[in-house]
Amino acid sequence: MVRLRWDEYTYPEIEKKLKNNPVVIFPLGSVEAHGYHLPLNTDMIQPMWLAERIAERLNALIIPPLPYGWTENLKSFKGTISIGFSSLYGIVKDILTSLVAQSVRKIIVLSGHASSNHMAALRLACEDVVKENRDVKIMLLSDYYIAYKYRGDLVPEDDGHAGVIETSRVMAIRPDLVKETYKFEKKEYGKYMVIVDYKDIVPYATFSDPHGANKELGEKLNSLILEELIKIIKENFNL
Amino acid sequence: MVRLRWDEYTYPEIEKKLKNNPVVIFPLGSVEAHGYHLPLNTDMIQPMWLAERIAERLNALIIPPLPYGWTENLKSFKGTISIGFSSLYGIVKDILTSLVAQSVRKIIVLSGHASSNHMAALRLACEDVVKENRDVKIMLLSDYYIAYKYRGDLVPEDDGHAGVIETSRVMAIRPDLVKETYKFEKKEYGKYMVIVDYKDIVPYATFSDPHGANKELGEKLNSLILEELIKIIKENFNL
Amino acid sequence: MVRLRWDEYTYPEIEKKLKNNPVVIFPLGSVEAHGYHLPLNTDMIQPMWLAERIAERLNALIIPPLPYGWTENLKSFKGTISIGFSSLYGIVKDILTSLVAQSVRKIIVLSGHASSNHMAALRLACEDVVKENRDVKIMLLSDYYIAYKYRGDLVPEDDGHAGVIETSRVMAIRPDLVKETYKFEKKEYGKYMVIVDYKDIVPYATFSDPHGANKELGEKLNSLILEELIKIIKENFNL
Amino acid sequence: MVRLRWDEYTYPEIEKKLKNNPVVIFPLGSVEAHGYHLPLNTDMIQPMWLAERIAERLNALIIPPLPYGWTENLKSFKGTISIGFSSLYGIVKDILTSLVAQSVRKIIVLSGHASSNHMAALRLACEDVVKENRDVKIMLLSDYYIAYKYRGDLVPEDDGHAGVIETSRVMAIRPDLVKETYKFEKKEYGKYMVIVDYKDIVPYATFSDPHGANKELGEKLNSLILEELIKIIKENFNL
Amino acid sequence: MVRLRWDEYTYPEIEKKLKNNPVVIFPLGSVEAHGYHLPLNTDMIQPMWLAERIAERLNALIIPPLPYGWTENLKSFKGTISIGFSSLYGIVKDILTSLVAQSVRKIIVLSGHASSNHMAALRLACEDVVKENRDVKIMLLSDYYIAYKYRGDLVPEDDGHAGVIETSRVMAIRPDLVKETYKFEKKEYGKYMVIVDYKDIVPYATFSDPHGANKELGEKLNSLILEELIKIIKENFNL
Amino acid sequence: MVRLRWDEYTYPEIEKKLKNNPVVIFPLGSVEAHGYHLPLNTDMIQPMWLAERIAERLNALIIPPLPYGWTENLKSFKGTISIGFSSLYGIVKDILTSLVAQSVRKIIVLSGHASSNHMAALRLACEDVVKENRDVKIMLLSDYYIAYKYRGDLVPEDDGHAGVIETSRVMAIRPDLVKETYKFEKKEYGKYMVIVDYKDIVPYATFSDPHGANKELGEKLNSLILEELIKIIKENFNL
Repeated sequence: MVRLRWDEYTYPEIEKKLKNNPVVIFPLGSVEAHGYHLPLNTDMIQPMWLAERIAERLNALIIPPLPYGWTENLKSFKGTISIGFSSLYGIVKDILTSLVAQSVRKIIVLSGHASSNHMAALRLACEDVVKENRDVKIMLLSDYYIAYKYRGDLVPEDDGHAGVIETSRVMAIRPDLVKETYKFEKKEYGKYMVIVDYKDIVPYATFSDPHGANKELGEKLNSLILEELIKIIKENFNL
Repeated sequence: MVRLRWDEYTYPEIEKKLKNNPVVIFPLGSVEAHGYHLPLNTDMIQPMWLAERIAERLNALIIPPLPYGWTENLKSFKGTISIGFSSLYGIVKDILTSLVAQSVRKIIVLSGHASSNHMAALRLACEDVVKENRDVKIMLLSDYYIAYKYRGDLVPEDDGHAGVIETSRVMAIRPDLVKETYKFEKKEYGKYMVIVDYKDIVPYATFSDPHGANKELGEKLNSLILEELIKIIKENFNL
Repeated sequence: MVRLRWDEYTYPEIEKKLKNNPVVIFPLGSVEAHGYHLPLNTDMIQPMWLAERIAERLNALIIPPLPYGWTENLKSFKGTISIGFSSLYGIVKDILTSLVAQSVRKIIVLSGHASSNHMAALRLACEDVVKENRDVKIMLLSDYYIAYKYRGDLVPEDDGHAGVIETSRVMAIRPDLVKETYKFEKKEYGKYMVIVDYKDIVPYATFSDPHGANKELGEKLNSLILEELIKIIKENFNL
Repeated sequence: MVRLRWDEYTYPEIEKKLKNNPVVIFPLGSVEAHGYHLPLNTDMIQPMWLAERIAERLNALIIPPLPYGWTENLKSFKGTISIGFSSLYGIVKDILTSLVAQSVRKIIVLSGHASSNHMAALRLACEDVVKENRDVKIMLLSDYYIAYKYRGDLVPEDDGHAGVIETSRVMAIRPDLVKETYKFEKKEYGKYMVIVDYKDIVPYATFSDPHGANKELGEKLNSLILEELIKIIKENFNL
Repeated sequence: MVRLRWDEYTYPEIEKKLKNNPVVIFPLGSVEAHGYHLPLNTDMIQPMWLAERIAERLNALIIPPLPYGWTENLKSFKGTISIGFSSLYGIVKDILTSLVAQSVRKIIVLSGHASSNHMAALRLACEDVVKENRDVKIMLLSDYYIAYKYRGDLVPEDDGHAGVIETSRVMAIRPDLVKETYKFEKKEYGKYMVIVDYKDIVPYATFSDPHGANKELGEKLNSLILEELIKIIKENFNL
Repeated sequence: MVRLRWDEYTYPEIEKKLKNNPVVIFPLGSVEAHGYHLPLNTDMIQPMWLAERIAERLNALIIPPLPYGWTENLKSFKGTISIGFSSLYGIVKDILTSLVAQSVRKIIVLSGHASSNHMAALRLACEDVVKENRDVKIMLLSDYYIAYKYRGDLVPEDDGHAGVIETSRVMAIRPDLVKETYKFEKKEYGKYMVIVDYKDIVPYATFSDPHGANKELGEKLNSLILEELIKIIKENFNL
């Protein structure tokens, strides 16, 4: 069995591997409330599952995942740990800069958390690294950019945070961490209004009803997302 | 079996656990060259092993480890990934602030990496959090603060990075990641001179000869460090 | 005729007006290339037109528009003037903080430029102001959040920057600034790839073919957006 | 009629104009209390009037004015909107950097607001841009650097903020915005003492008595300042 | 003899002295070229001489002087050591904040260096400290604000850096540091042009001809400035 | 007698001296409580004494000492003046950068204050300067790195801040500033606990009993440290 993790190798082993210009995957999660039914590490479990399969299939390397992200508006829910915008930007910029300085030229930044502010911090970091190194190719996405394409088809149109997709996917990967019951309520709020505490809208940190979520659907979704991702990665990096 | 990881719980479960004012452990590592014989995640493996045993014994919770640290002077060695001083300060400050905002009052920041600059970033972050919350108790250390007490006794007087202690400890925890051969060389350099690239001193990223390292010694050291740590923690937090 | 502009009043006049808790509108633009056919101030003209009509209808006040925004990826095109993320965040945060300190409690931040990074800077600024003043209500949007709802219906599905909507709207507001001919070309690029220079994709700074744009369509779109906006504003601020 | 505004052109038009190495004017104002008699935009109106005439006469281009400046010590007066020192520095540095990157080499930064801190932010930004681009020529001033030369001659020796010069000049440019009555009072305060709230000194935001101000004097002053400015600009840029 | 220096006391001695609410003087200098005839510490010698006499006369305390200031535009001249704007702001803000936290309420910030950017950093620091502590009185000036009042009277109208006043004053205080010969040349340059290297204007770091400087004039000037300063201080702090 | 101070020379004199590539010494202190018996400038007196003798012996130059350092945890004691971590880093970085820009290549940064955070700020500044100028040699230390080697030998094993070494050394240099009586008490505290106010541990700002301190011991220690330092400096800079 080939090791997938960058950090399980010695430095001379990495030095050797870098000569083949491998794809390097940087998975990111978030420690945040996902309702009464899903664990706090929900956003880390999903991209990690994908990263491991992509690495196996494409002979890529996975650097240590960053389990923390920007999730300020969920901080009222116990257990949520958020890092600020500039801290997130800083650490991601530094990590990518280290990789690039070591000749890595194909990077996938894959975030399980997809909030706009979180993704903006990642995007600015990626863009600044590419500006300084125009021959580096970075692919940046949340697996939810792909997952949400199945809304209206396999899952409800308004499926969101801790809803059917997310619950099903975690059931398929770590069923031991999913609770049997859930609570869901969503309040009205003004369009385009700036909201700083999601507890005002979704008192149980669940943005859509997870009713109907099941392991089989999760396996199907995980598989669909994985295949779509692998197709795109092959095209982007000419593999 | 009780779960040790904070992030494997749902938010209402953490809310419940926080009522008992548990000790929370924040393990930190570093992705850095440790010679021809040790893996890049050497500094993460060791505090993680300790954190899990402490959590079991003292009913503590472990938040997701931060695998990245300040290790600028090892960046010439492939595989090393370093984050800057202010990025490290920022993310640690934010994580601790999130914990404190959720009523956590007993925190152990345990770093496998012990470089002075790295520890200064952690210390400043801890101090700033305590200044803003004078009732929070934070214990900050590297397990090497304890490990190095056995220098001159169980191991050579000048044992250091990737030397006998570190090699033995990793052999005891993850023997599959340790290589059989190593390279060691250490050059003279001026006292108190500012060095920015350790490759100028230790061309193989090994600061002392690991000769004599073995699994049994590693188990003994791990056990000694663990017991010492548990004793101090009990005293500090009145457990 | 009632003055709409905050800055055309004396300070005692504003002091008096603030007693009625008026809605205050902060319009933002961007100085950026919009093809061979549209002026650099395209993103300022449109929200300004809306702001004036909203102010008239709802007795709101307009503070001086900020004509500059984050538009780094268009900087290769002459004429484009971009300000950095933190500069944009800083100035918007300061302006909103000044308003809030003077008892303003109903604010609309209306940006003609809708790029994700630009909007993230505005959102973070708005959120930070609301966090520090929980009784302040801020509505944040680009008029293109509403405009793009007509894609697939009144205009092509893939209509974008300098396309049919934008060209038509500017034709309706400032026909003297619109050129008769345009150039359009769009190149393939990898999905989710980080792009730092849009010239690599759209050599004429036009993201969709403006063919078919006309003044009547522009008037219709402007009117639809205005009415939708007024409806939402009334609901959000209970007017 | 030739367009004076940079942002009313398309990008290819600007590209063409830049080949002639035109002078580019960047006008700045401030939204701040100017007594009971003058509007909040007093500091924007005056440099804008000058900029337009200079542009006409010297074939220069005007980029969008920045209507906001550092004016912290007037914040107690309603209507005043101040931006912080680093926000002001940042946005001005970014705007100038964009211009310079597009080959602009002759820039006039013309501020209607002349407070020392405000001007220091502009000066530092200008200096940093020139340090990085030693072939760029930047002229930085407030029109009040010239206007105050007429103190003791055409106007009182101690004329200042909202006094005879300023009132007369605005009467000449935008008479509709000037009120007929004013309030003036100035208190004693310690020499060289640090003052953070000007309300403690001038309760009506008027630093000198505007008595005697009139439109004709304003026209004369505007004309004198304009001609002096044009003379200096011609010398500085060899026009 | 009473000690004048804050730092020559023990902490309990200072604790006792603070009960009388003493005036505290913070002298600042700059290490910068002052022609062929004056030493690099010219800007530190002068305010230090004043501070010592003021302290003696008014029973004030002198904290350690800060010998470094912002002097970027003299950096081409060897020997000049400049600190950046934000470093200067930061250290002055921190020092004043420490004083205020220890109940000091009457502070004189006295700078021998009077460049606009340097003074702006000091002013912003002072203002921010006063904003956070409205009962603190800070007097901020350069002794050259007073010295230049004698221009046209005792000394030439255009006297400046390293000219008659400065040379005379240093001759009176530290004659051993003044050289007998000097070099002076001043080139024309555009009005209001941004200059980043003063070597382009004054190739010998001397802004006006020191011809005629002498010890007696220096003693007279020092005495005049001292008496004027003491008069103002007494008025400002009700001594 | 040769002048030792960089700032007592004119700029052409320094220009001439720099041709011989002299060693430049940058002494740093701290204004902080040192018990009932030692003055606040204790940490400045000691390195200054060393610097002057080193300069005499090795023909080195001393730039103006920085009397302020990071000493946050002593701020509860009156008289202590602390500057923040980033202010300290900033000013030291700027000063070193100025020196390096003027061709200085051999620098000794010598701090009388040895707290870990203080030294980390200095180290980061030094490292960043060396990274940008790989041919610059910087030696960074506190004289206490050497002084503490005599613990257990000439002085008690646990000697520390304001203890026997420090008291003796100051008695030898500035006996007039040392008081005859002292107060000492040290409380127990948890190992590795983050402490932000040292008053909780040492109510008299004295970390070890100064009993037995005397002038002769101070002279001996000063001499031992000086000779050791000179030996190391000669080796490091090939003098």
